[in-house]
Amino acid sequence: MTTRAFGAHAADKPLEPIQIERRKPGPSDVQIEIAYCGVCHSDLHQVRSEWGGTLYPCVPGHEIVGEVSAVGDDVTQFRVGDTVGVGCMVGSCRQCASCREGEEQYCTGPSWVGTYNGPSEDAPGHTLGGYSERIVVDEHFVLHVRHPKEQLAAVAPLLCAGITTYSPFRHWNVGPGQKVGVVGIGGLGHMGIKIARAMGAHVVAFTTSESKREDAHKLGAAEVINSRNTEEVESHAGSFDFILDTVAASHDLDTLTALLKKDGTLTLVGVPEHPHPSPAAGNLIFQRRSIAGSLIGGIAETQEMLDFCAEHGIVADVEMIHVQQIDEAYNRMQRSDVKYRFVIDNSTLAA
Amino acid sequence: MTTRAFGAHAADKPLEPIQIERRKPGPSDVQIEIAYCGVCHSDLHQVRSEWGGTLYPCVPGHEIVGEVSAVGDDVTQFRVGDTVGVGCMVGSCRQCASCREGEEQYCTGPSWVGTYNGPSEDAPGHTLGGYSERIVVDEHFVLHVRHPKEQLAAVAPLLCAGITTYSPFRHWNVGPGQKVGVVGIGGLGHMGIKIARAMGAHVVAFTTSESKREDAHKLGAAEVINSRNTEEVESHAGSFDFILDTVAASHDLDTLTALLKKDGTLTLVGVPEHPHPSPAAGNLIFQRRSIAGSLIGGIAETQEMLDFCAEHGIVADVEMIHVQQIDEAYNRMQRSDVKYRFVIDNSTLAA
Repeated sequence: MTTRAFGAHAADKPLEPIQIERRKPGPSDVQIEIAYCGVCHSDLHQVRSEWGGTLYPCVPGHEIVGEVSAVGDDVTQFRVGDTVGVGCMVGSCRQCASCREGEEQYCTGPSWVGTYNGPSEDAPGHTLGGYSERIVVDEHFVLHVRHPKEQLAAVAPLLCAGITTYSPFRHWNVGPGQKVGVVGIGGLGHMGIKIARAMGAHVVAFTTSESKREDAHKLGAAEVINSRNTEEVESHAGSFDFILDTVAASHDLDTLTALLKKDGTLTLVGVPEHPHPSPAAGNLIFQRRSIAGSLIGGIAETQEMLDFCAEHGIVADVEMIHVQQIDEAYNRMQRSDVKYRFVIDNSTLAA
Repeated sequence: MTTRAFGAHAADKPLEPIQIERRKPGPSDVQIEIAYCGVCHSDLHQVRSEWGGTLYPCVPGHEIVGEVSAVGDDVTQFRVGDTVGVGCMVGSCRQCASCREGEEQYCTGPSWVGTYNGPSEDAPGHTLGGYSERIVVDEHFVLHVRHPKEQLAAVAPLLCAGITTYSPFRHWNVGPGQKVGVVGIGGLGHMGIKIARAMGAHVVAFTTSESKREDAHKLGAAEVINSRNTEEVESHAGSFDFILDTVAASHDLDTLTALLKKDGTLTLVGVPEHPHPSPAAGNLIFQRRSIAGSLIGGIAETQEMLDFCAEHGIVADVEMIHVQQIDEAYNRMQRSDVKYRFVIDNSTLAA
């Protein structure tokens, strides 16, 4: 099926309207008419080949929500008309230990498939993402969206930003009675504040922008720390159970590890372009602290997150854009000039 | 009580015989005639003030074994004649969360007391360690030694090197069915191999010295990897549940984190003089791995470790020295020229 999309033909070319082909749904496939697609930093890195290895044409987008328009004969979990989402992956080996444990994001098999730039038998030989009118995905990688219809656009960012924060909170048992830090109030961080708060934690937001202090409180932070204020930071020494660090830019980790209690964990979810300054081993050794990393979440956990967010009325704070505004949106995103996630209205692809 | 000891009067002075005073045992004190004292790298760093802050005269030594010669009126756990040990600490606040959890090594109160260079009301105002004939310690910080008497000298290193490896193995649940790495085959590493093996793990030793390959197998390693052999190292990618890194010298951690499975942990127990190269966040994120630190162990766990080692016939491999040979021993230790721990025969203090 010929499908309208927005993508780039090279790293130094702007995104523009392109025609792509979507496969006819196979027996286990779900065909989705995409209503909205969130705009993730990864989209920008990929389309500009800042990580290298980008295949062109590149159609980014992995925060996808829409409506099922067709299902294959073997599909059991979805029906035409269902409201659904697709996140960062559309395939995995389904056989390795991680896949069997329902953590497909850590698939060690040969066939993990990202929603864009992944290997594909479909033309043009690699996967094309959500900046498009339609996508066809194996039902295993499709999620039910149970939020009210009018919230659908603001649900899109949950598929990446939401699960990227939810999964480490669950893994490290964030909950009532815990003091939890969220570093960086952006696309990921603003979701982290909302979710950790809904999990019952005492949430402390870290920002370098004094202007975000009020916002952070509104998002659910009980306390807000200006990371540039050494005195304010140090007054929280040794008091955190868990800190989620959403800042990908290279930054000092020692001031954060020093804030953890014994056995506390600082979890990174962003890969910095330039390495962080080397963290002090002493900060880890003297209170048995850890620095860890976490990658999105598995499919079952993504469904759990969506349901948790629906139950708690959690969506992203979004700014809607037409797909034609994507380059401007990227530029503003790079300046952190968005509160807190751009979402494309995919109906504008037909404009 | 005037007591013979060996210590230094300044960072640039050699250790020499000195007379120190030990307090008369208070109600909860145990007085111990020291038979043997292990020689730890920390002794050397402290006495030469390589960490700064060393108080002089400095009498190092925190791998202490000996016999009880007197007990205070309120002592209930020890009797004259008992064989006992003292490790790296002789006091803590006993009230903070860590102390209440029996992890006095992570005491956050104001009164944690190291076995040497710690605050003390006794002359000269700081604690003096095990390079001495006698020590007086609150019974809470004294351990029972249940090994056969003839093994006593080789038990001494368990009080620091033993517990420093045992505690992280227990904390990260090392046991049967697990593949566990031990990096560095020295005072700590050789204990780590023995203990992890006794816990039932499949132990893989990492060394840069091809000459230690045979030794590592004898110590209990099922496999030995030459860290300098990239091909050999990489063939183990993603296969380790846990890696204990005993190497304090600055070194690359990425080759080690890459060897961990999903959710695996690399635990550091040594503070490098110069920071390790900054570890890659991607290695942590893509398989939810952690880099952690660990510090000795609590008193209850140290007793558990001693009993575990007694039960499994585990002691250190030691080279006995006279106290007068300490400077030569330090120099050899710095060249890793010891298999695997020097232990002072404290009877030589009377020579």
